[in-house]
This record gives sequence, C-alpha cells and structure tokens, in this order.
Amino acid sequence: MTQEFVLGLIHQGRLAEAMNWISQMNAVDVAHWLEGLDDNKVLVIFRLLPKDMAAEVFSYVSSEWQEFIIESIADREIKNIIDELFLDDTVDLIEEMPANVVKKVLKNTNEERRKLINQFLKYPDNSAGSLMTIEFVDLKKEMRVDQALDSIRRNGLDKETINICYVINKNRKLEGIIPIRKLILSDPSEVIENIMETNIISVHTLDDQEEVAGIFRKYDFIAIPVVDNENRLVGIITIDDIVDIIEQENTEDFQKMAAMQPSDEEYLKTKAIVLAKHRVPWLLVLMISATFTGGIMQQFEDVLQSVVVLAYFIPMLMDTGGNAGSQSATLIIRGLALDEIGLNDYLKVIWKELKVSLLVGITLAVVNFIRIIIMKQASILVAAVVSVSLCTTVILSKVIGGGLPILAKKMGLDPAIMAGPLITTIVDALALLAYFLMATWVLGL
Amino acid sequence: MTQEFVLGLIHQGRLAEAMNWISQMNAVDVAHWLEGLDDNKVLVIFRLLPKDMAAEVFSYVSSEWQEFIIESIADREIKNIIDELFLDDTVDLIEEMPANVVKKVLKNTNEERRKLINQFLKYPDNSAGSLMTIEFVDLKKEMRVDQALDSIRRNGLDKETINICYVINKNRKLEGIIPIRKLILSDPSEVIENIMETNIISVHTLDDQEEVAGIFRKYDFIAIPVVDNENRLVGIITIDDIVDIIEQENTEDFQKMAAMQPSDEEYLKTKAIVLAKHRVPWLLVLMISATFTGGIMQQFEDVLQSVVVLAYFIPMLMDTGGNAGSQSATLIIRGLALDEIGLNDYLKVIWKELKVSLLVGITLAVVNFIRIIIMKQASILVAAVVSVSLCTTVILSKVIGGGLPILAKKMGLDPAIMAGPLITTIVDALALLAYFLMATWVLGL
Repeated sequence: MTQEFVLGLIHQGRLAEAMNWISQMNAVDVAHWLEGLDDNKVLVIFRLLPKDMAAEVFSYVSSEWQEFIIESIADREIKNIIDELFLDDTVDLIEEMPANVVKKVLKNTNEERRKLINQFLKYPDNSAGSLMTIEFVDLKKEMRVDQALDSIRRNGLDKETINICYVINKNRKLEGIIPIRKLILSDPSEVIENIMETNIISVHTLDDQEEVAGIFRKYDFIAIPVVDNENRLVGIITIDDIVDIIEQENTEDFQKMAAMQPSDEEYLKTKAIVLAKHRVPWLLVLMISATFTGGIMQQFEDVLQSVVVLAYFIPMLMDTGGNAGSQSATLIIRGLALDEIGLNDYLKVIWKELKVSLLVGITLAVVNFIRIIIMKQASILVAAVVSVSLCTTVILSKVIGGGLPILAKKMGLDPAIMAGPLITTIVDALALLAYFLMATWVLGL
Repeated sequence: MTQEFVLGLIHQGRLAEAMNWISQMNAVDVAHWLEGLDDNKVLVIFRLLPKDMAAEVFSYVSSEWQEFIIESIADREIKNIIDELFLDDTVDLIEEMPANVVKKVLKNTNEERRKLINQFLKYPDNSAGSLMTIEFVDLKKEMRVDQALDSIRRNGLDKETINICYVINKNRKLEGIIPIRKLILSDPSEVIENIMETNIISVHTLDDQEEVAGIFRKYDFIAIPVVDNENRLVGIITIDDIVDIIEQENTEDFQKMAAMQPSDEEYLKTKAIVLAKHRVPWLLVLMISATFTGGIMQQFEDVLQSVVVLAYFIPMLMDTGGNAGSQSATLIIRGLALDEIGLNDYLKVIWKELKVSLLVGITLAVVNFIRIIIMKQASILVAAVVSVSLCTTVILSKVIGGGLPILAKKMGLDPAIMAGPLITTIVDALALLAYFLMATWVLGL
C-alpha cells in the first residue's frame, strides 16, 4: 500500500513527500521493496533515503544490487554509506564485490578504516574474527557511572551494540563487562570497578562460528566479547549475526545429511551446473557402493532362481531398513549438534536403540507377516523368513544408524555425513545378506 | 577447577567463602554443575546462592531438579525464587510439574501474579502469547527523557528486557518504541513523543512461534512487542527465547524429514517405548507402500526369470533414485522454511531441477555404463538398459523431489513430510517400472 503510494508521489515529482514516507518505513522492508523494482526507480528511491538509513538499506539488499548501486552512485554518496556501515558489513561487501567495485569502495574509505579492513580480511572464514564488529563501547574501571554515561554520549554511537559496555585497561585487556541498563540503574557517583561483572565469558578471534553459536545458545547471551592472543578486546559478536549462523549451520547439516556438499548460496540464485556439482560426488560414491548389494544377490543366484517370489520383498526390506536407520541417525546427529548427546553416551545410545529397534522391529514384522498371509502373496514359510529378516534389518539399521554418527565425531569427522543415504547403502547389503542366509537355511535351498 | 575448590570449602564448613566464590560464577554454569552432583550437595549449594542468582540458576536446571528443589525447600525460599523468576518461566514450571508441586508453587505466589499465570496458561502451545514475558518497561509519550529515565530507575527492573522501552497510552495501546540507548544519547529535556519510533512491527498473542521467529530473522530484532485483539501491549518476546524456538523448529523438520513424529524431548531423556511410538507409524505406512514396488516386479516375472542379471542392478537403481530425490526435496524444503523459495516459484524449481537432473543423470549413467563394461558384469545391451534407466530415474526423482514439497505447502501440509523416505518409496516404483519396460523393449523379451 504505502509502497504503491510512494511510487505515485515519485512519479508526480513530489519527492519531499515521498522522502518523508520512506523515512518512516523499516529499512529491511525498503530493501525488499527495492529488490523488486527496476534499476532507475531503485536509484531514485535510494537517493531519497536519509543518510543513516541509506547505509542500513544498503546492507540488506542482495550483493547484485549492492554492486549496481556502487557502480551507479557518486563517490561522495559512496563515502556516506561506507562511513555509516558496520565494519563487518563493509568487509563482507569487499569480499563479495568484483575488483572494480572494491577499488571504488576503498577509494572512499579513510585510511584508518582501510587498515582495519585489511586486518579483518585476514581472519579465516567462519571464525569469530570474521563475524565480529568493532563498533562497541569501551570504558575504564576508574570511571564513575556519570562519567561513563558522559563518555557514551560523547561517543554518540547509536547502535544496538551499546547495550553492553566493555571495561578495558590501558593495554586494552578486557577487565569487566557492564550492561548499559546497569549504568542507568546505578548511583551516578558509583565507580565502574565496583559494579562491573568480572566473570567474563569471551571467545577468541580464531574460534569457529559453530562453537560461538553454542555459547550463545547455552548462556542466552545477546553479545559476547572477542579477544586476541594477548587477551586484548578486539571486537564483539552480537546475537543477530548468531541467528544467521545458526540457520546457516542447520542448512549445512540438512545438505550433508541428504548427501550434498554444503553451500550457503540460495537455491534459486544458484546455477544448475553448480547445484549439479554439489550433488554428483556423493551420488557417485553411493552408486558404486550399492553395486556391492547387487553382488550379494549374485552370490545367491540359485536361491533367487528357485524361489523367485523372494525377489518381490527386496524393495520393502531395503526401504524399511533405510528408513529405520535414517530415523536413528537423524536423532543422534541432531542430539550431537545441540550438545544434548556427548561422546561418552555411546553405550547409552546403542542400548537405547537396541530396545527401540526391538519394539519397532517386532511390530513391523507382525504386521508384515499378517499382510502377506492375508494377501496370499507367499507361503507361511516364506512369510516367516521375510518377517524375521525384516525385524533383523530394523535392529541392525537402528544400531548402526545410532552408532555411526558418534563414531564419526570421535574420529573428528562431521557426524552429519553418517545420515540416511550412507546408512541406507550399508544397511541394504546387510539386509539382503540376512534375508538370503535365512531363506537358504529355512527353505533348505 | 573452581567447582572442586568450592566443594572443598563447603566440606570444610567455610560456607561464607564458598558463597562468595559461587556468586562470581555464571548462573548457567552453576546449573550445569548442580545437575552432576548428588541431592544433598545440590541443596546445600542452592541455599548458598544469592537470592536473584538462585532464581536464575533454578530456571536453568532440568525439570527433574526443579521438582526436587521445590519439594525440598521451605515455603519462604520458594517464595523468594518465584518472586524473582520471569513470569514465563513460572508458567513453564507450572505446566511441567506434578500437581503437588504446582500447589506448593501457587501457594507461594501472590494473588496478582496468580491471575497473570492463569491468563498465560490459556495461550495455546507454540503461540506468541505462551512465549512472551511481561517484564518490560513502559513509558508515556508526554514524558521528557529525564522523567523516563527516572521512571526506569524507580521501576528498578534489572533485566535484559529493558534494552527497549515501549510507549503506551492510557488504554495501554502501543504508540511507539524507544531503545534505552536512545534515551541516554538524547537531550534530557526532549519529549519522548518526538524521539520514539512509530513504525512498529508487533505480533499478536495468537501468532505461531514459527512466524515470530521468521520476523526476528528478517528484521534482526532483539525484542518484539506482543499485542492483544484490542492492540494493547501485553508482553514482549526476546531474542534468547527465539534462538531456542529456531532450534526447536529445525529439530522438528529434521525429525519429520526422517519420517518421525516430531517431539521436542531430548533423546537421552525419552523412554524407548515413546521413541518407538514416534517411529512406527511412518515406517508402517512406507513399508506397506513399498509392497507396490514388489508388485511391479511380480508383473515382470518372466523378464526377471529369463534375464536374472537384471535383478542385480535393482538395489543400485533404487538407492540412487532415492538419494537423488532426497537431495532435491531437502533443498526445496529448506528453502521454503527460510522463505527463500515461495509458492509461486513452482515452475522455476521444476525447470531448475530438470536441468540439474539432466547433468547429474548423464554423469552417473556414463560412469555406470563404463563400470559395468569394465567389470564385465553384463552385456553392452544390458549395460545400456541399466544406464538409460538410471538417467531416467534421476530425472524423475529430482523433479518429483523438487515439486512435491511445494505442492504440499500449497495444500496447507507441512513440506517437511515430502522428504527422503516418502520420495524414495514413490521413486522406487517408478524406477523399477521404467527399468523393466525398457528391458522388455530393448532386449525384445
């Protein structure tokens, strides 16, 4: 509604009015709106944005639009945006833009900031250093509360990152933290040292983002300080970035569990050839592994030829085994990811899966037996062989599905690869082996 | 380290010193520590905690320990905890505890709070109302900044929920929001009305938690106001609760995608019989569906008997089809969950999956053809039939895997059920049909 109306105002040349309306909108909504418009309109609207809002909107549009905007606007305008952007957003921008755009950005960045950017670019991908922002408030422990508040006002940083203030000594070592609300609630003449919290949980610049996310989850933090090797405060990580990391880590787990190489690009924005590249390797490995299952059938050629009816139950046995194994693997992989299951719970997990698989296996076997008899698909003897094999398969799949993820983690691998597809391939071979051995024995072939 | 040391102090009866150490620790760490100790020690340490910390630690221990603590401590101590607890944590407590414990809790809750608790208990599970907290700061728009700060100080609420203040009129209708940092940075004589933000995004008490999480993700909020039918402010939801919700929703998706009924209980704390109950229904449905695949083989009994070698490739075909379909389904389900793919992207998805599946299918088919020939497993003609069937299967699986989740969402179902297991079952039947039809035709059977 508003958006149509604003476009109308712009069309009529009533730009001041349009600007007034736009400045009332939420920056995220403006960014989404711009992404659906054509080039010219985007530039017109972008130039109508108040200075601080322009930077915020800029940080929310896709990198294609960021590139277009930087290429289209004047140096002075670029400078305004870069000055207002969070440093970590600027670094992300530089990492994603082509060389000519990067040049234009750096030209409009002051020297001090350029130095900081270079330092940031050295942090490894997915490290705490690459995630942090340097826009935070630092205080000295000798300050009184009123002096601290004055210092915050003089600094004038109007960002969410000032909700928690950091107390450092003259070597920039972190000595305490104090939420801004505590400053407000405290007596103005109180000394910071007496009211700051000294039991600080911090992360190191090189810590992995998944670890950092785990700490936020555990302690319900809204921000965490990041320190370097000398324990000097170099930045902070805020919860809004962690929410993105959590979703990204979950997406990677979903992808790995479905036998794909992880990628954080959006599906619709990824080219078919790139998607295919992420999918082929595991499919190849699993395809070739599955030929072993075919090999097992080949070993039992005689059995299969004399009782062809045995073949008809193979898909059901294989599918049920795969599904039963996936269920267990999924629960364990998820439990490991959320730290609900530890490496020492190995035996507990196996024992629990044994009990569950016995309950599940017997239920399925009984239903299957009755179904075969009612539908007159095979003799009682064959039905019995199929059902006992089914129960055996379920037990094997669940124990393997529950055990392999923990084993992977113990070996320093990502448990997520031990999910459905791999478990299915392993279980298929075992299921067929159990089936044919039992058939050979019971049917006396 | 500290923990061992503190236990030593307690053992020596140096309780004041122990108390001093414990009060320096993080409440979450104390909670985790307590969970590993025996009953007596837990009570001793719990009683040493400063009053406000006791409530925080209490909110972090498992419900089994909460029950034990409430049963063991005196009414006065319970009252201290309940007074300090966030209202939403109290409500969670009441929902989880057995009747005798609930009685003990309510007895030590003042009447006003009891009324609020009753009101909270009426919000449906997973609604914004059931998630919100009522401990927030409300201001009037006529106030000056210094008056607002005074009012916050008088109120004295030392919780993270005061990072953002809410401006309401005399009917408690929400008129604006103002971050506490803005109060600090503004001129003390400024009137709230002039500096508050009026473009407010809020949620309704009955909105689903998944929707609320989506809004936090989109706007990078740290808190959001919750309003009732009359647009009156009744509570706020903070980001730390949303992080838990996001993980919970992800866990549910993982479980549904692995053909389980979702549950938010921790694996190790769930009884085997309950786990089995969550797993059996889908396994039964899929097992019975898989018999159709067996039925298809039965139709081609003659083909199978005259060229037994065809049977050996069935596991490979079925597994690859299932894996290829799971990959596509997973990407689409995830894209839908993160709002990266919309219902109108139907054709785009199908078209992209067609291209990807062609690339993937041909690659796999070529590798497979060469492998069969090199390993001399079958004649060139059979190898060709297997490879063409493989390519067809991959294309079918990927198009079905990409399309079904969107179709499910269009029909108001959860896309997550259209994942690996169901896709595998559907694709198995189609793969075998394609395989045998092609074999009959090419081999002239």
